[in-house]
Amino acid sequence: MIRMYDLIEKKKHGGELSREEIHDMVAGFVAGDIPDYQMSAMLMAIYFQGMNAEETTYLTMEMAHSGDTADLSGIAGIKVDKHSTGGVGDKTSLVIGPIAASLGVKIAKMSGRGLGHTGGTLDKLESIPGLTTSIDKERFFEIVNETGIAIIGQTGNMVPADKKLYALRDVTATVDSVPLIASSIMSKKLAAGSDAIVLDVKTGSGAFMKTLDDSIALAKEMVSIGTGAGRKCCALITDMDVPLGHAVGNAMEVTEAVQTLRGEGPADLTEVCLQLASNMLYMAEKGTIAECRSMAEKAMKDGSAVKVLAEMVKAQGGDPEYIYDTSRFAAAKVAGEVKAPADGCITHIDTEGCGIAAAMLGAGRAKKEDMIDYSAGIYLRKKYGETVRKGDVLAVLYTSDEKKLAAASEKFLASYTISDGPAEEKKLVYARVTADGVERF
Amino acid sequence: MIRMYDLIEKKKHGGELSREEIHDMVAGFVAGDIPDYQMSAMLMAIYFQGMNAEETTYLTMEMAHSGDTADLSGIAGIKVDKHSTGGVGDKTSLVIGPIAASLGVKIAKMSGRGLGHTGGTLDKLESIPGLTTSIDKERFFEIVNETGIAIIGQTGNMVPADKKLYALRDVTATVDSVPLIASSIMSKKLAAGSDAIVLDVKTGSGAFMKTLDDSIALAKEMVSIGTGAGRKCCALITDMDVPLGHAVGNAMEVTEAVQTLRGEGPADLTEVCLQLASNMLYMAEKGTIAECRSMAEKAMKDGSAVKVLAEMVKAQGGDPEYIYDTSRFAAAKVAGEVKAPADGCITHIDTEGCGIAAAMLGAGRAKKEDMIDYSAGIYLRKKYGETVRKGDVLAVLYTSDEKKLAAASEKFLASYTISDGPAEEKKLVYARVTADGVERF
Repeated sequence: MIRMYDLIEKKKHGGELSREEIHDMVAGFVAGDIPDYQMSAMLMAIYFQGMNAEETTYLTMEMAHSGDTADLSGIAGIKVDKHSTGGVGDKTSLVIGPIAASLGVKIAKMSGRGLGHTGGTLDKLESIPGLTTSIDKERFFEIVNETGIAIIGQTGNMVPADKKLYALRDVTATVDSVPLIASSIMSKKLAAGSDAIVLDVKTGSGAFMKTLDDSIALAKEMVSIGTGAGRKCCALITDMDVPLGHAVGNAMEVTEAVQTLRGEGPADLTEVCLQLASNMLYMAEKGTIAECRSMAEKAMKDGSAVKVLAEMVKAQGGDPEYIYDTSRFAAAKVAGEVKAPADGCITHIDTEGCGIAAAMLGAGRAKKEDMIDYSAGIYLRKKYGETVRKGDVLAVLYTSDEKKLAAASEKFLASYTISDGPAEEKKLVYARVTADGVERF
Repeated sequence: MIRMYDLIEKKKHGGELSREEIHDMVAGFVAGDIPDYQMSAMLMAIYFQGMNAEETTYLTMEMAHSGDTADLSGIAGIKVDKHSTGGVGDKTSLVIGPIAASLGVKIAKMSGRGLGHTGGTLDKLESIPGLTTSIDKERFFEIVNETGIAIIGQTGNMVPADKKLYALRDVTATVDSVPLIASSIMSKKLAAGSDAIVLDVKTGSGAFMKTLDDSIALAKEMVSIGTGAGRKCCALITDMDVPLGHAVGNAMEVTEAVQTLRGEGPADLTEVCLQLASNMLYMAEKGTIAECRSMAEKAMKDGSAVKVLAEMVKAQGGDPEYIYDTSRFAAAKVAGEVKAPADGCITHIDTEGCGIAAAMLGAGRAKKEDMIDYSAGIYLRKKYGETVRKGDVLAVLYTSDEKKLAAASEKFLASYTISDGPAEEKKLVYARVTADGVERF
């Protein structure tokens, strides 16, 4: 009791916690010896006083080692992981994983489910009939060794410190602290055991971090933790001020990912995927960034990347024919068009609002227990920067439940701003953050 | 749950809580609907973001009304309360209460026990054989109506919000926040029901507030709350860089209080008591501050003040002969002198350390459950600013347990700094704070 009191007092006055103190704090909290009310006071003190690079790295490593960790030594080759801070229409994992795997990188990925306005990779994959993401360790390693890639849910008691801390942060208004966000994400990545980690830090109206500066700060913190913990690590800051691609919704996103893997995807999604894939290949020492990009482009064009996805789907129990022919995905029962209420230019999209509209259609969850409607979602016909005439179809909304259409349409329409324009130019990738520094594009 | 989350988030960003929000928060916390872990996050947010005058007043009033409140309408006349933030050798309540009561002010005082390095008025009074501070409401009112003064322990379920909040602050390093300290003290004073409140805010090495600026800030906050809640209220900032008077320890302090009531007390204690008593009389509209001081001096000289103390002791079941003849108090079994280790001037006293030495002798409690040794304590022969020769007796330490003497002597000696000097001039009273502003002396 007294010791945790001293640590709170120290942090409150801006002091630095030692590695031993952080160890005792995390271990005591997970064991239940440090009560929630002391930890929440500490979290609020950290919100105000921050943590330096050493403290954040120690905290992350202690969290990573608070439960089971994955030992990937049973998988031959360089294992590269990827993490996205989450966005709307973000199906990049389904594209860049297969690209990198088709070029010899090993992707042993544990992924998450969607909550709120952002989707999760597991939900997208599970829209493929038969596919399971609950796979034991031996079979997981086998699939990665055979096909180069497997994407599964978290197994065992991994990172219990993060689960317990996040649940507390969630009810005490201490989520939005850069060292706490960074340590939460990176503790899971460290526990997942890959040799290298590529981070996709989203920025803009659909991202957790709304401004570029905040996104860069988070990326720097995460890269610092990763390298401090002995992993290779870099981050791209990518745009989430606009949904990525045209499809928002689980089966629809798988379809768009497959199109992109074939080199027939939307330009924005294709470009972001190529840059992320290049960095994954670069981390696996496949060549220079430029060389890696050429390799990735070739894997799209020659069909090797889409073949890897189909193999992974088959290995995880899914029907690979859905990858070779995405028209097999069941169409939603109800479709409704949303039309432009006036002439003008689309000068802003509230991307979070757009993601919430998709969730309202059944594509996402408001609560963890909610069921997903895999065929539900939004297909964007008109995006940021485009000029529209009154009555033009902005998007088509899909759902299995007609009653959900009206409110979701209203929410979706409210997320579009149509005005005189022109719309400001936007970048797709704003910066690359490595241990050496920040390279802005 | 969600609502408290929103309040934490608001305060975290420096927002102002409304009266209704503060009501819901205090009521929900006392009822157990708001968990400790949310309240501790809120307390830490308040530590960093503060509260403005309205918020602090609302918080205090909600706390004051969280349980039973005293209705003093059964006592005729103007009721004046007094609170000290606590110090070493602070026996002023035993002096100024009887002075004010002898001049027609009604003192219906609920007091506390000592903890840590400071003593409590109840413990001092209970060193008088037979005296009880557990008195029911009817008898309490009767004594005040008859003798003008009674000093008792808290009765009933008063200010449960403060008890619960303080217990949480105590283990989450959120004690040292001016609005939280002020609301804790003032909620008890408001619940205690007097018409006017004189605050004695101590400053210096033996006080909770170590600097003059901090002490003035706390005094301003408390006076603002008192006047905001419709009470007359003023504060004196008095020195606690040096123990007050010569006696530290319960029976010894009663003896010194009686000497002072007779006009035969130490100069520092006498002066502080006269200024506090003048302000109590002034609050009761007995005249100007100067007129009130003359009245107080007269009440000391003519014996009327000491007579009121004896009457109160008798009414509370104690033997009044101990007031008329303080030599009746049992002497401590063991006495030990502490001598100056070198020639020099006493240029600093670590007054908190001195108070801890007294507690080590048995005069105070480290834990609430500890028993008090009423005869234990320290009599200071030499104080701040005095010149001593090596071997001069600095103080005599008294205890019932010889084993305690060595460690207490060492602790006491370490609290004295003897150097070349000279010692800086010190004031006894630094400032007077009223609703109109701060008057520095």
